[in-house]
Amino acid sequence: MIKSISKVIDSWGGSSYFLVKEIENGKNIVNEWKEKGGTVIHLTMYGININDLQDKLDKIKYPLLIIIGAEKVEGWYYHNVDYNIAIGNQPHSEVAALAIFLDRIYKGRELYMEFGDAKIKILPQNAGKKVIRNG
Amino acid sequence: MIKSISKVIDSWGGSSYFLVKEIENGKNIVNEWKEKGGTVIHLTMYGININDLQDKLDKIKYPLLIIIGAEKVEGWYYHNVDYNIAIGNQPHSEVAALAIFLDRIYKGRELYMEFGDAKIKILPQNAGKKVIRNG
Repeated sequence: MIKSISKVIDSWGGSSYFLVKEIENGKNIVNEWKEKGGTVIHLTMYGININDLQDKLDKIKYPLLIIIGAEKVEGWYYHNVDYNIAIGNQPHSEVAALAIFLDRIYKGRELYMEFGDAKIKILPQNAGKKVIRNG
Repeated sequence: MIKSISKVIDSWGGSSYFLVKEIENGKNIVNEWKEKGGTVIHLTMYGININDLQDKLDKIKYPLLIIIGAEKVEGWYYHNVDYNIAIGNQPHSEVAALAIFLDRIYKGRELYMEFGDAKIKILPQNAGKKVIRNG
């Protein structure tokens, strides 16, 4: 998984923006994050609908630590994060949940993000594909 | 895949809302959709950034046929759909792309959707999990 992410970053850029690593203890990171004054968010279908938290999200304290789990997340996280936020209270893709969350907090600006170290860039087209390669 | 979707619908409802089927010829569906006056949208990272199409999306003619492909989508689709729309021009999850597209056109209302035939429902919680089972 880390290997395939590194390959994507190598082509599309973001090497100084993304850091991918495996960790042993997620709880330590949650605790440290809160101690430093950041906000910890857990995206879960059991949480509060993001639509009902928009006002709070606009005033949230950065930096954000966002936790998304696959099948089973330990109960500890539900009770130790700042917000349990639901991208709707029905089963859904965790990747889609993160995407919508980011789209809501960045208000779409994330879709214009570009990385200076990208070897490949796309030139948006009405139809067809246009790719630019740098070196 | 169809089996696992049916299982989700059986628990979480939506049996009269969702129709899941395998088809032989996607091009026929595109052509029929356009003949009937609907709009055909292809979500692709090679298209026009959705941020730049918001005005058009607000006036788009329903019903919508939304096409999302995995690795390789035939060139024909790029040239025969009404809009090639990019949820950003960088590699991303197709599921996430569909989620953001729906969130933009429904303006978040989709996250309140409920199905009358659901056997399981979630009661949103600040922390922890609360599930209601109907029969």
